[in-house]
Formats: sequence, C-alpha cells, structure tokens
Amino acid sequence: MIGFNSFKDIDKELGLVEANLASSVESQLSIMNQASVHLIKAGGKRLRPAFALLAGSFYKKDLAPLIPAATALELIHMATLVHDDVIDDSETRRGTATVKSAWGNRISIYAGNYIFARALGLISDYQRSDVVDLLAESSMKICEGEIIQMLSCYNVHLGLKNYLRRIERKTALLISVSCELGAMIANAPAREIEALRNYGYYLGMAFQVTDDILDFIADEKILGKPTGSDIRQGVITLPALYALKHGPGRQELAASLSSPERCLSQAEEIIGMVLESDGIEYSYYVTSHFAGKAKKQLEYLPAVPARERLYEIADFIMSRDY
Amino acid sequence: MIGFNSFKDIDKELGLVEANLASSVESQLSIMNQASVHLIKAGGKRLRPAFALLAGSFYKKDLAPLIPAATALELIHMATLVHDDVIDDSETRRGTATVKSAWGNRISIYAGNYIFARALGLISDYQRSDVVDLLAESSMKICEGEIIQMLSCYNVHLGLKNYLRRIERKTALLISVSCELGAMIANAPAREIEALRNYGYYLGMAFQVTDDILDFIADEKILGKPTGSDIRQGVITLPALYALKHGPGRQELAASLSSPERCLSQAEEIIGMVLESDGIEYSYYVTSHFAGKAKKQLEYLPAVPARERLYEIADFIMSRDY
Repeated sequence: MIGFNSFKDIDKELGLVEANLASSVESQLSIMNQASVHLIKAGGKRLRPAFALLAGSFYKKDLAPLIPAATALELIHMATLVHDDVIDDSETRRGTATVKSAWGNRISIYAGNYIFARALGLISDYQRSDVVDLLAESSMKICEGEIIQMLSCYNVHLGLKNYLRRIERKTALLISVSCELGAMIANAPAREIEALRNYGYYLGMAFQVTDDILDFIADEKILGKPTGSDIRQGVITLPALYALKHGPGRQELAASLSSPERCLSQAEEIIGMVLESDGIEYSYYVTSHFAGKAKKQLEYLPAVPARERLYEIADFIMSRDY
Repeated sequence: MIGFNSFKDIDKELGLVEANLASSVESQLSIMNQASVHLIKAGGKRLRPAFALLAGSFYKKDLAPLIPAATALELIHMATLVHDDVIDDSETRRGTATVKSAWGNRISIYAGNYIFARALGLISDYQRSDVVDLLAESSMKICEGEIIQMLSCYNVHLGLKNYLRRIERKTALLISVSCELGAMIANAPAREIEALRNYGYYLGMAFQVTDDILDFIADEKILGKPTGSDIRQGVITLPALYALKHGPGRQELAASLSSPERCLSQAEEIIGMVLESDGIEYSYYVTSHFAGKAKKQLEYLPAVPARERLYEIADFIMSRDY
C-alpha cells in the first residue's frame, strides 16, 4: 500500500511522533541504540499513530497530548515486528535487513521487550488505568493471535473463521485500539469512542486482507518484502483459502500447502494456482465489505474534517488503487 | 538455595498468589494454557511475591490488596525466564524441561509476552501511574542487563564493575522493585520505601552472587539445573572472575573461557581451576558484604515482626547454610 494523502492534516504531529520514536528508544547501550535506530529508519507508514491522531482530532484542536500515546502505539507495533522477525525467520522486512539478521536473534528478543517497556512508560504518564488496561488486554490478544497463526501454518483444513480470527489479532486489533485510544485521551463520549473503535476494527480487517492480496500480486519493490512470503512460510491467507475451496486443482494445491518443503520450493507454482482461481477477486470483495462496514461507523460521528479523512481512507481501500 | 522458613507469616498469602498465578495465565488457547501451567508447575521459591508481601506487612495487617502486585511480580519474573530459555538454549531449568524444549521456540516468545501483558493488567488495576512507571522503568533496565550479559559472554577482559552491573539487572533490580512495590502499595512513608528498596537491592545482589557460587559447587538436584551451566554458556561470574585475576594457571583459564568450544567441552576442567583459586571464598565474602548492607537498611524501618523476617533472610544468606 502506498502512503495516504489523508494524513496531511496531521503531518506536523506525525513529524513529532517520528522524533519521539527516535528519542524513545534511546538506551545507554550502544548496541541497543543501533538496533533501535536501525528499526526506526526502516520506516513504515506510521498508520497506528495516524489513526490515534485522527481520532483525537475529532475532539481536540491541540493534538500535543496525543503524541506520547501515538508514539507508544507505533512502539508496540515495532516490538511485535521485532519479535516476528525472530520467529518467522524472514530475511527482509520493508526492504531493510531485519533486526535479526543484522544483530542476532538474542538482541531482537531483548530489543522487542525493551521497546514494549518503553511504550508502557509513555502510556503510564497519562495516569489512566483504563488506558493501561486497554493496552494490556490487547497485547494479550495479539500474543494469542500470533500463536493461532503459528499453529495454523500448513493446515489446509481451517476455514474462513480461523482466518478472520488471525487477521483480527494480527492487524485489526491494534488499529482499533489506536482509534479508541486517540478518542479516549481526547475525552470523546463513550458512544463515539465505540464507533471509532469499530471503525478501526473494520478498517484494520480490510487492511490486512489487502495486505494478503498484495502478497500475491504486488511488486517486491512496492511491497518492501518478497512477494509470496506468506506462502513460503505456510501462512494460508484468504486468496489461498478461496483457491483451496473453489479453485481448479484444489487437491494438488492442498497437498502443496500442507508441505513446508513444497511451500518453499514450489512457491511460484502455488501462487500461480491461487491466481488462477477467483481468490484475488473474492478477497477484494471481502476488503470492500469490511471497508464499507468501517464507513458505516462514521455515521455516528460528528461531521468534522477528520471524518472526511477517515472516509477517504476507507474509500482508498475500496478503490483498489494502490 | 533452599526455601526460607522466614516466609511462614505470609504462608496463606503466598498460597493465594499461587492460585492467582494459575488463573492469571489462563487463555482460551489450550496450547498457551498448557505452556503456562507447565511453567507454573515448574515452581520456584516465589521470592518476589514474598518480598512484596513482607514489605507490605510492615504497614498493613490485611495483605489482600497486595496479592495482585505480588502475582504480577512473579509473572514478570516468569516472562523473563521464558525468554531466557529461548535465548540461552538451556535445556533444563528447575529440573523441569523448559517451555522451549517442550513447546518450541515460538511459543516461548509469545508465552513470555503474554505473561508479561497479564502482569501489566494486574498492575493497571491499582490505578497508580507511579506503580506502572516503576515496572516500565525496571523492565527496560532488565532488558539492558540481559543484553549486557549476552555481550559479556566469553569476554575475559571485563572486570568486577561489569559483573556487578550484570547481576544488578539480572536479579537485584526486580527484588528491589518487589520490596519497593509492596511498600508503595501499603502506603509506606517515602523514606521507608527507599530503605526497603535498598534492602531488596543489596539482598538481591547477595542472592545472585550466592547463585553464582552454587553454580560451581552445588548438587544438580539441589540447584534444579546442571552445575556449571554458566561456564558452559560462557557467562563469567564472580568465582571465575577472581580465578582469572588471582588463580593459578590464569592464562590457561583465560584461553579456555574465551573459547565457546572449550567452555562446552572442558567445563569440568574450568570448574576445577576456579575451585583451586580462592574464587569461591572471595565470592562468599562479597555475598556477606551485600547481605550486611541489606541489614543496615533495616535500621530505618519500624521494629515489627516483618523486620525480623528480613533480618533472618539476610542472616541465612550470610550463614552459607544452604
């Protein structure tokens, strides 16, 4: 996915988050600093901070109080990426060598923990237990999701429900929390906090399905990671799931996807089989379905410019123009 | 080290912590449950909960409000153990197969994160940002310590200062935090919180030096892990440090300890060389020094039964009778 123009109103604040990210992970240990700086430079779209800021901007002009929370959300996301790198044995992420391959497995685990603890410190300053609770609760669910994903690898007998649960934990949850947190800190009314949380949830679902589509069809340069990396790791996403159920040669596909060896050696063939099915088209439909549900939540919110931005983002996802 | 009789006054509360530990790590995911239960059953002395409870009992009769914090401290300790297992490639801990060897590396990372998040949830319920801050800050320092230890492996040129920094982060810090947290939650006066924090710090230092001694001299059955596991992993602790500086054949020892291969294949010989030096005796002296400093802090505290218990624990460490 390409960056959004919809973040232009919060451009200044996103710059502050970026500066905060760098100073947040400063450690007296030079190797930890190197690992962290390395990670920050690898970049990313800073979606989670952006959603927190946009959600807060419904209710506050001055977004300065939201900066620490926005930074913490990105730190939590970064911590999960660092731990994922240890685990997935993925060699590149966002086109930059992973912390793992540059610094070794051990540093990655500790760096991930360190970054998470730093996020906690930023959050603690709000002196709000509802905020800490929200992060504790969602962190647990995200861990569970990572285990579900792991246990689901190479298993061709799992269906849509399992997939949705996986992507919920993997992406939708933290984007939902980002919207919710921004609204909470800006003291939004309870019903509108709920609408923003739901928006983030549905949009996060749409994002992840899109990401899963792109893993089949995108250019490696645009994606920032090799195409087909899911297949190679035995992660069965929606396009493959559809192909397994409705595609031509689904028995052969099932045999291939069940085998870790074939997932590695025959990734191109597997991708080809998925592309021959209507799996991509079906997945686009599911993306639109979730983006539509996200938009529906916006009806409960005040008609301020931030709402337009959130509509645009959902429309952007529906446009397939990325 | 053998369990303390000094915990008899808080026996009931430690039982509640134990029950809480089990229910705290409950997850909807059966594999996570199995991994966690497995970990809890592996047991341990629950030192951190005990210190939090003892510190709190200086100021409160009813220790019920301390149970969640005491549980959280043990969960944080457990989370670091789970992550250490991933990293150290140690095959046994406390005589039970590690989470890693039983469930695979990935589960260990996620289980550690999950357990840490659960601890955070328990702590968040106190609605006190000073408490969350304390845990965030110390978690970061513990991560740094783990990296320092990792980078210090097989390095025979590092001295006492590096060693003390390592054991501070590895053990003293969380025991210090346990005492401090117990006192904070029981609303102790600021000066007494400080004295309890310092007590925990010095006692934690004494504990870790003792642990490092036992790794050279104890029975595998008593220790719950193989003797010499530090040496095998290239972790140079105080007895070895002394032998490197003052022992007979220190050049040969330095050559062996610098080599990961020799640390594994010649562990017995290396242990023998350390035992031939006065390294163990010197380490006992350092243990007593720290235990003495811990006792000195108790002078600032009210003369209640809990103070006697803390004296006893320090004396127990000084007695060498474990």
